[in-house]
Amino acid sequence: MVKVAVVEGDGIGREVVPVARDILAAVRPDIEFFDVEVGYGRWERTGSACDEETIAALRSADAILFGAITTPPDPGYRSVLMQIRRALDLYANVRPIRGEGVDVVIVRENTEGLYSGIEWTEPDRACTVRVVSRRGSERIARYACTLAKSRRHLTVGNKANVLKSDCLFVEACTAEAARAGVPCTFCYIDALCLDLLMHPDRYDVIVTTNIFGDILSDAAAYLVGGLGLLPSANIGEGHALFEPVHGSAPDIADKNVANPIAAIRSGAMLLSHLGDPASAAAVEEAVDRVLRAGIRTPDLGGAAGTREFGAAVLREVGRG
Amino acid sequence: MVKVAVVEGDGIGREVVPVARDILAAVRPDIEFFDVEVGYGRWERTGSACDEETIAALRSADAILFGAITTPPDPGYRSVLMQIRRALDLYANVRPIRGEGVDVVIVRENTEGLYSGIEWTEPDRACTVRVVSRRGSERIARYACTLAKSRRHLTVGNKANVLKSDCLFVEACTAEAARAGVPCTFCYIDALCLDLLMHPDRYDVIVTTNIFGDILSDAAAYLVGGLGLLPSANIGEGHALFEPVHGSAPDIADKNVANPIAAIRSGAMLLSHLGDPASAAAVEEAVDRVLRAGIRTPDLGGAAGTREFGAAVLREVGRG
Ligand SMILES: CC(C)[C@H](C(=O)O)[C@@H](O)C(=O)O
Ligand SMILES: CC(C)[C@H](C(=O)O)[C@@H](O)C(=O)O
Repeated sequence: MVKVAVVEGDGIGREVVPVARDILAAVRPDIEFFDVEVGYGRWERTGSACDEETIAALRSADAILFGAITTPPDPGYRSVLMQIRRALDLYANVRPIRGEGVDVVIVRENTEGLYSGIEWTEPDRACTVRVVSRRGSERIARYACTLAKSRRHLTVGNKANVLKSDCLFVEACTAEAARAGVPCTFCYIDALCLDLLMHPDRYDVIVTTNIFGDILSDAAAYLVGGLGLLPSANIGEGHALFEPVHGSAPDIADKNVANPIAAIRSGAMLLSHLGDPASAAAVEEAVDRVLRAGIRTPDLGGAAGTREFGAAVLREVGRG
Repeated sequence: MVKVAVVEGDGIGREVVPVARDILAAVRPDIEFFDVEVGYGRWERTGSACDEETIAALRSADAILFGAITTPPDPGYRSVLMQIRRALDLYANVRPIRGEGVDVVIVRENTEGLYSGIEWTEPDRACTVRVVSRRGSERIARYACTLAKSRRHLTVGNKANVLKSDCLFVEACTAEAARAGVPCTFCYIDALCLDLLMHPDRYDVIVTTNIFGDILSDAAAYLVGGLGLLPSANIGEGHALFEPVHGSAPDIADKNVANPIAAIRSGAMLLSHLGDPASAAAVEEAVDRVLRAGIRTPDLGGAAGTREFGAAVLREVGRG
C-alpha cells in the first residue's frame, strides 16, 4: 500500500489538486490518500500555517501531492514551502520543460545556496550567507547525472567567475559526470539564461544551485508560454513532494476556470517516482489526447471548466 | 577639455573600440583620448592584467570607453572588470534595452550583493556573503528613481520572500520612490524574468541587486535578439565606464567582421553622461540611418566590415 499526503493549500490549489487526485486514484486504486491542511487559510483560522505535527504527517507519506499556497502579507511569515523542503530535506527540485523544440529538465539544488537561512541584520546592512556544501553539491550532481545518463547530456549553470563558492559546485559536478560517463559542459548562469532562450535545442539536463535554478526555470518557462502547464518535483531521501509550478492565483480561484494540467502532470511525476512509469505515461497521454480533442480551459482559449477538463482526462485514462 | 581613457582590451574590443573612438572624436573634437592597456594580452606579456597604476590612470579620466576582456584560464585570476568597478566605485550598471515593443532600462547595483568578495572556504563547504547595505541600496535607488522620473515608472526586482537582506533593498527603493514621486511596483526576480519576457511593454526602469541584474539583463537581451547590439554604462561619483555588453569573442577577432554598434552606442551613452545629449542623439541617429540604408555587418546578414560600418556612421555623423 502506498500513502500519499494531499495538500490542497490555497486558491486554485483547492480546485486543481482534487482533479489530480481523482486521476491518481483511478490509475492506482492501491494508493491511500490522506489530507494535510497547510497554508494561508489555515493560518488565518489558527494562526499557524504549518507546524511540527503537519511536518510529521508529511514525513509519514510515501509522496506528497501539493497544490499552491498564498503568502500572507505578514513580514514575519516564513514560506511554508521552504519550511517543508527543508524539514524533509527535499534536495532536488526537478522541473521538466517540454514543448515545441524544447525538452529540458532543470535540476535545482533545493536546500542551500542563498536559501541557507543564515542571515543577520546590522545597523547599516543586511547579510545572507550563500552556502555551497560538498555533500549538497555531490548529491545534486549525482541526481542530475543519473537523470542525464538516461537522456543526453548535462550543463552546469554556475557563476564561478565571480563566486568562489561555485568552484566547489563545479568541481563536484565535474567529478560526478566523469564517474557517470555523462557529457558535461559549463555555462555562466547569466549567459545560460540567454542561450537557453535562444537555442533550447542545445540543452538537455541543466543542474544549478538554488536561486539560479529558481530564476532560470522561470525564464525557461517562457519557451512554453509561461508557468501554467509546468509540473515539478521536490525529491529527498525517502520523501518527495510534487507541485504545479504556478501559484495559488487567488484572483481566479473558486470559479472552476483554473487549468489543472500542471497539477495532473505533477501527479504523473509522482507515479514515476513511485516506480510506476507506465501509469505516469498513461496519465500524460490521457492529457495529450484530451488536448488534441480540443478540450481546453479558458487560459488556453477553451470553455471547459477545471472539473470538466479533469473528467475528460479521467475518461481517457479509463480508455487508455 | 574632456579626458577620455580608452581601454580596447582583448579580441574584438581592439576592433570595435577604435571605431567608437573615431566617431566620438568627430562629434567632440575637444575630447582628449588616452590609451590604457588592460586585460588578457597584457597579462600574457607582463603577468599583470591591471595594477594600481592602471587604476590611477582610469581614475584621472572624466570617462572610460571600454572594449572587452578575455578571461585567462587561470583559477587565481580575478576579473579585471570587477576590479575596476570596485576600485572606482562604479555603483550603477545601466543597461538600456530597446527594440520592437521594448524600451526598458535595467539599473543594476554594481558593487555589493553577492559580489561582496567576502568569501571563505571550509573543509566541507564554501561560503559567500551577500551584502546589502543601506547606503548602497539608497544610492542605487536614487539613481534609478532619477532616471524613472524622466521616464515612466520603476519596478524593483527582489527576492524579499526568501532573503531578509532584500527587505532592506525594498525599503530603500520604497522610500526613494516616494521622495521622488515615482510610481513603483515590486516583483520577485524569478517572476520578473518571465514577465519581462512575456510582457516587455509593462516595464520601464527596473532596479535590482547585483547578480539578479546580471542574470535579468542577459535574459532581457533575448527580446532584442541577444547581447550583440547592447551598450552599457557603469556609473560612479565622478567616474564612469562605458562598454558593450558583448564579450571579446576571440573566435571572430581580427577578421574585421565584429559589429561595432554596441561600442558606438556605449560611446553615445558616454556623451550623454558628459552632459552632451545632443551629440549622443546625433551618434544614435547616425547608426539608425546607416542601418536603414541597409549597411550591416555579417551578424545582421550584411557584408560590411567593422571598419566599413564605422566609416559609414562617421559619414552620417558628419551630415547629421
Ligand atoms: C515561493 C518561493 C519561496 C519559491 C522559491 O523561491 O523557491 C518559488 O519561487 C519556487 O520556485 O518554488
Ligand atoms: C564578466 C562578469 C564578471 C560580469 C559580471 O558578472 O558582472 C559580466 O557578466 C557582466 O555582466 O558584466
